[in-house]
Amino acid sequence: MTVMQKQTRRKFLSITALVGTGLSLFSSAIAEQTARKQLVHHVFFWLKNPNSKEDLSKLIQGLKTLKKIESVRRIHIGVPASTELRDVVEAGYSASELLFFDDLQGQKKYQDHPIHLKFVQDCSHLWSKVIVYDSMDV
Amino acid sequence: MTVMQKQTRRKFLSITALVGTGLSLFSSAIAEQTARKQLVHHVFFWLKNPNSKEDLSKLIQGLKTLKKIESVRRIHIGVPASTELRDVVEAGYSASELLFFDDLQGQKKYQDHPIHLKFVQDCSHLWSKVIVYDSMDV
Repeated sequence: MTVMQKQTRRKFLSITALVGTGLSLFSSAIAEQTARKQLVHHVFFWLKNPNSKEDLSKLIQGLKTLKKIESVRRIHIGVPASTELRDVVEAGYSASELLFFDDLQGQKKYQDHPIHLKFVQDCSHLWSKVIVYDSMDV
Repeated sequence: MTVMQKQTRRKFLSITALVGTGLSLFSSAIAEQTARKQLVHHVFFWLKNPNSKEDLSKLIQGLKTLKKIESVRRIHIGVPASTELRDVVEAGYSASELLFFDDLQGQKKYQDHPIHLKFVQDCSHLWSKVIVYDSMDV
């Protein structure tokens, strides 16, 4: 084998190893996403002025600050979707926050975090009602 | 360049392209997860017999069948978490299903899907109350 052949062979082997590691990391990320049990924290807000776009915007801006809290693993901020209004569907709320935590401690850290406390201080005058659902994956 | 050198070089180039494509797919999957707006469908079930472990188990088994529906992008099946019982927290339900869809069409496909209809047929006698929240990411 020439020097060049050996070099090319080494490159080939390194890249094969890199592909293997990459695929392995990718598949563990997928497996983790589907297998790890998480704590789901879903909060629904009813605005005092449900027709005020300005108040809704303020609330959503406030909710967006929550993603900076370290223990928040994933966040979705939403408004009622225009799905069919069956009698079991609650669509009267103004906005929602859906957060994922690794465990009870993660949720507690979030509750006590200065960013969360500032959000409540800045925005709680906007809402008339809040409902919280905390679920642990089975 | 010898024939063997040419073959090795071709392998090297193919693998480099493969790594590039792999990395690109991986980074778009991550970006999509954080950026794509989704429809969040969260359903809470109150059992007729809230103390029956057997009924809870039947309901959870039924809920687990829903992940086979093609338009369901992510599923979390939960029970109330043991977070602090503040007056805004609703913890009286028995089980919850949290589903993610790409859009309204995905949710509609799920509603009409035979697996979902079979779940309702098999399990609806177990519950006394259901609340559904459909939220669209802002």
